[in-house]
Amino acid sequence: MWVTWIGSVAALGFALILALAVLRKEPGNERMKELSRAVQEGAIAYLKQQYKVVTIFFVVLFAILGVISWGVPFAFITGGFFSALAGFIGMTVATRANARTAWGARESLNAGLRVAFSSGTVMGMTVVGLGLLDISIWWWLLYGVFDVAPEEIPPIMITFGMGASAMALFARLGGGIFTKAADVGADLVGKVEAGIPEDDPRNPASIADNVGDNVGDVAGMGADLYESYVGSIIATMALGAVASLGLDSITALQAIQVPVSIATIGVLCSILGTFVVRAKGDASQAVLLGALRRGTYGSTALIAIGSFLLVILTLGSEFLGIWAAMIVGLIAGNIIGYFTEYYTSDHYKPTQLLSNEALTGPATTIIAGMSLGMLSTLIPVLTVIGATLAAFFLSGLYGIGLSAVGMLSTLGITLATDAYGPVADNAGGIAEMAKMEPHVRERTDALDSLGNTTAATGKGFAIGSAALTALALLAEYGNKIKEAFEQLVMNINLLDPKILIGLFLGAMLPFVFSSLSMRAVGRAAGDMVNEVRRQFREKPGILEGTERPDYAGCVAISTQGAQREMVVPSLLAVIAPILTGIIFGPFTVIALLAGALTSGFVLAIMMANAGGAWDNAKKFIEGGAHGGKGSDAHKAAVVGDTVGDPFKDTSGPSINILLKLMSMVSIVFVTTVIALNDLFIRIFS
Amino acid sequence: MWVTWIGSVAALGFALILALAVLRKEPGNERMKELSRAVQEGAIAYLKQQYKVVTIFFVVLFAILGVISWGVPFAFITGGFFSALAGFIGMTVATRANARTAWGARESLNAGLRVAFSSGTVMGMTVVGLGLLDISIWWWLLYGVFDVAPEEIPPIMITFGMGASAMALFARLGGGIFTKAADVGADLVGKVEAGIPEDDPRNPASIADNVGDNVGDVAGMGADLYESYVGSIIATMALGAVASLGLDSITALQAIQVPVSIATIGVLCSILGTFVVRAKGDASQAVLLGALRRGTYGSTALIAIGSFLLVILTLGSEFLGIWAAMIVGLIAGNIIGYFTEYYTSDHYKPTQLLSNEALTGPATTIIAGMSLGMLSTLIPVLTVIGATLAAFFLSGLYGIGLSAVGMLSTLGITLATDAYGPVADNAGGIAEMAKMEPHVRERTDALDSLGNTTAATGKGFAIGSAALTALALLAEYGNKIKEAFEQLVMNINLLDPKILIGLFLGAMLPFVFSSLSMRAVGRAAGDMVNEVRRQFREKPGILEGTERPDYAGCVAISTQGAQREMVVPSLLAVIAPILTGIIFGPFTVIALLAGALTSGFVLAIMMANAGGAWDNAKKFIEGGAHGGKGSDAHKAAVVGDTVGDPFKDTSGPSINILLKLMSMVSIVFVTTVIALNDLFIRIFS
Repeated sequence: MWVTWIGSVAALGFALILALAVLRKEPGNERMKELSRAVQEGAIAYLKQQYKVVTIFFVVLFAILGVISWGVPFAFITGGFFSALAGFIGMTVATRANARTAWGARESLNAGLRVAFSSGTVMGMTVVGLGLLDISIWWWLLYGVFDVAPEEIPPIMITFGMGASAMALFARLGGGIFTKAADVGADLVGKVEAGIPEDDPRNPASIADNVGDNVGDVAGMGADLYESYVGSIIATMALGAVASLGLDSITALQAIQVPVSIATIGVLCSILGTFVVRAKGDASQAVLLGALRRGTYGSTALIAIGSFLLVILTLGSEFLGIWAAMIVGLIAGNIIGYFTEYYTSDHYKPTQLLSNEALTGPATTIIAGMSLGMLSTLIPVLTVIGATLAAFFLSGLYGIGLSAVGMLSTLGITLATDAYGPVADNAGGIAEMAKMEPHVRERTDALDSLGNTTAATGKGFAIGSAALTALALLAEYGNKIKEAFEQLVMNINLLDPKILIGLFLGAMLPFVFSSLSMRAVGRAAGDMVNEVRRQFREKPGILEGTERPDYAGCVAISTQGAQREMVVPSLLAVIAPILTGIIFGPFTVIALLAGALTSGFVLAIMMANAGGAWDNAKKFIEGGAHGGKGSDAHKAAVVGDTVGDPFKDTSGPSINILLKLMSMVSIVFVTTVIALNDLFIRIFS
Repeated sequence: MWVTWIGSVAALGFALILALAVLRKEPGNERMKELSRAVQEGAIAYLKQQYKVVTIFFVVLFAILGVISWGVPFAFITGGFFSALAGFIGMTVATRANARTAWGARESLNAGLRVAFSSGTVMGMTVVGLGLLDISIWWWLLYGVFDVAPEEIPPIMITFGMGASAMALFARLGGGIFTKAADVGADLVGKVEAGIPEDDPRNPASIADNVGDNVGDVAGMGADLYESYVGSIIATMALGAVASLGLDSITALQAIQVPVSIATIGVLCSILGTFVVRAKGDASQAVLLGALRRGTYGSTALIAIGSFLLVILTLGSEFLGIWAAMIVGLIAGNIIGYFTEYYTSDHYKPTQLLSNEALTGPATTIIAGMSLGMLSTLIPVLTVIGATLAAFFLSGLYGIGLSAVGMLSTLGITLATDAYGPVADNAGGIAEMAKMEPHVRERTDALDSLGNTTAATGKGFAIGSAALTALALLAEYGNKIKEAFEQLVMNINLLDPKILIGLFLGAMLPFVFSSLSMRAVGRAAGDMVNEVRRQFREKPGILEGTERPDYAGCVAISTQGAQREMVVPSLLAVIAPILTGIIFGPFTVIALLAGALTSGFVLAIMMANAGGAWDNAKKFIEGGAHGGKGSDAHKAAVVGDTVGDPFKDTSGPSINILLKLMSMVSIVFVTTVIALNDLFIRIFS
């Protein structure tokens, strides 16, 4: 297992080198430095507050877990800590890269890209590096120091996965609520009511908006993908430990090592891939996109070869099914990524047709966008089905986990191409606020639009891997129940009413969860609207440019709103499976998880793609279609974009985490829940 | 089984008497007669076209079914025929009651209500009467003439349920597309672009809009509820035939007779209930609502007593569990109905809060409405879960069917209180177009608003019964598979990948289906917008009131659009379960049905309630809140209402039918699909 240390150290070392390189770049003029500092301070202020609330949650769960076992609560804490750290480091570099990207874009598109992409790479490498580091540390402690048997280690590690998931859910929800509240507040009062342009420094919510992009799209995404990454690896390790029992010539230790070895190969190949992402100084947008694509596809090919050699050399050619299952995931991720782009990019028919609907007003825009989102669920579902069947055929349940690990093995570089988008977006904001030359804004916009395209692929990987990881966790939960009831084979009859009601409950949960998170955005945005209106009313000099708006006040409002609103939906994820288990027993919980997984997966894709398509339909019109900016069609498209914001950046991605967190909670608490269920039955009968 | 003849003849006779009474009323002045005739002609023209398309579908399926068995295809045809007939009769009376209601409203609110409610009762009684008639005829033919064993009859009857469902899906989809296309077209060009009021005779789409209410909300609803009604009875008969095998002292014949006997009691009690719905000449809206409520609650109480006596006297007190299961359904229907009203009526907090969101524009209105719809799924799901567990505990799977029958036993009167709403709505349209005194329109609006409240309850019953009936059909499909594989007990393991992929496929289907039906509305509405614009452009005299618009042209456009667009989603319902069965086998089909049922149920409630709340939030503002008609808040609320239209009147209710149709198709084709699956496996392995 020493290989994970290599992967971890390589990733973190590379991240450090790049971070230092970014910080050495020129941070721009005085005005830019000041703005950048305001954003950094706001982001730190937010995170401080968030970590306070999260700490309470973790302390309570730590105490509860402490009753069950001694090692488990510590694993839980480290998962949360590393997940938060991944987001924090990524964000710290991103907030410093914003102004530097804008300054680079003065020179050329390529110079801007280099800064933004380096910052994105820091994020990508930090996420995978910390993920492998946490796994390495726990493995060393449990296997090396405490001498735990290898097949007993992965179940303990699921607790640290649960910590990472809980943290990720808070980060996604809190960050998502913050950023959308600030965004909607800034737009509704600033753009619509006061008639000032986007990112205008007179808008008191402009800094909060910028902070929001960092805490939501950067720190939130970092914590989220940390969770996905370690979740897929741990779930597969756990299944490997069990699967190996049925195989002759492969030990539990070997089956557990395969996913971490593949992950390590992925890290090394991703680092190599980033070196391909370079272009000449005067490169056009299309050339830069080509460079980014070369980086990801190159890494993908290297990983395929590397893991082939790994399996052949360490396990032997009779275990090539393991390699093939991982390749299935890699291919499935690319298919889902491609169709995410197809449905949400304005280079393709669906989004272009959606923009036509804006000609007949906001209502038809909303209907068509919802319809697009719903239809776009078809291919991802078919792809996941195909991948599940193929992976299962190749290596059983273990294979399903491996396909998720395969899908995320390129995370180091795909996250880099995803995370540089928000940096470019914020560079544009700073360029606007610092009144830089117009060509700078044009270039950052070009980078941002490039980021949207590559981010679509990244989202596809996140969603697809969430489904496969949740399936693997569901299988592991099944193993746990088998263990608890000491059965060799377990049948959970779909036509049993206890199972059917679990499916109903599960199908409903993602809807109620999304409802809560959307209401949260609405309420927090309402607070922001009132705050901006108050400032404009009480300080009339703001709009004339003679008075300085109270930026920190808006940041504080969004921070409070996000903290207040993220608690209830997060608790739902923890309480629902436990309460269901206590009342109806663990078999209903299996159905609950399966129902939530299937309906939540479809709902998450629908929301993500509808939101993405609305966003790009608006951008398509801003690019000159249907009368361009300021036309009635544009106004209708802005309504679609605003509806899409909580869809794609708050509720949609949170569902992915919800599904995995519920599964992990079920696994960690399985014996406790079974005992409480017995008690419940005895009391009520 | 002679009791069903009594129920059938009583219902149809009562419907005939009321229909004649409605027709004897004064149809109004010349202008009104002319308008009413135009609506009648448009509606008939539409139905003719619809039946042509449907006939092709039925002939093809008739031929396919003919290959399987000789009796089955005829049962299929009669189901479709009676379902269509129920819609046709209800609509014929409704189109004649519109003008008569307006004329009655000249006199008093109560006089208007009497005409509209009588017309609604004709619909209610026709639906239940024809339902029982079809069951009676087939029972007499199979049991009396062809001497089929009683336990073999219900499975044949499921074929006629399938016919009814297929017809209902066409009617709901076609009618829903027609009415929403006409509505959106009339609003977007007439109200928004040309600035003329709603229902203005200068609007070429005004007659089509009126026709749409009749073919969608009346004929579509009639066919839909016919399907629900016979579906629940037949599914329960089928489960009774199997359940009786495990019981000692109850014969298959008795178990089969229970649901039809309860239905007959329901018919008789509903007739009695309608006599309670009367008030004094000058009764206020609140008094009238009280009268309607008295009617439904009175019938409910009578049915509870009547079915108690039935079970005690014919089966004995040891079978009171059967009665209790039916009562569980009755109570569950009322709970879901109450919460449907709670979430969608502007007398309660949720819709009032939604109307606040209109103050910050259409985007926040849409977000809040979606969120409301999603949250409103919680109680119905918990209620269905509770009802399922209770009914199963009381009488096994048979009990789940009985609870659906119980829920729909009051259909005669609940449908009457539901179906009079569109009549009142159209009476208002005719009053406006015929330029009657303003107080007439005020009164028809009051009746319409009353109708919205009672219709909410009706929708609750329709949705709840759909879930329970689909559960019963799922159980029956399980029985069929058991039979086919000659197993006594069948375990369908939830953790088997073949089952999990079925759940994924099933969870996705309602989304794709809704996407198709919403796109259909969008496209058909686009055609209508172009047609109205063309008429205004080519005949400038229309807007000045000097030229007569081409009403029939608009009706034809909507008709063509509806016919063209309803085919693909309908085929999806038939093809999806068959294709899944052929490729993956019948066990995956079970999972497909379960996945579609759970995610579809939640999605249908979300769409219905979000749509209802948007509608009433708009009405709340029109009632004077937030600046009233013409304010910015009103404009935002209109956007919400327009988005909600296809949600609540096309996609949402169609999902309910889709779920049952897929189950019935699976049951009818089970042996064929198993054989083809064998063939498929042999070819590909």
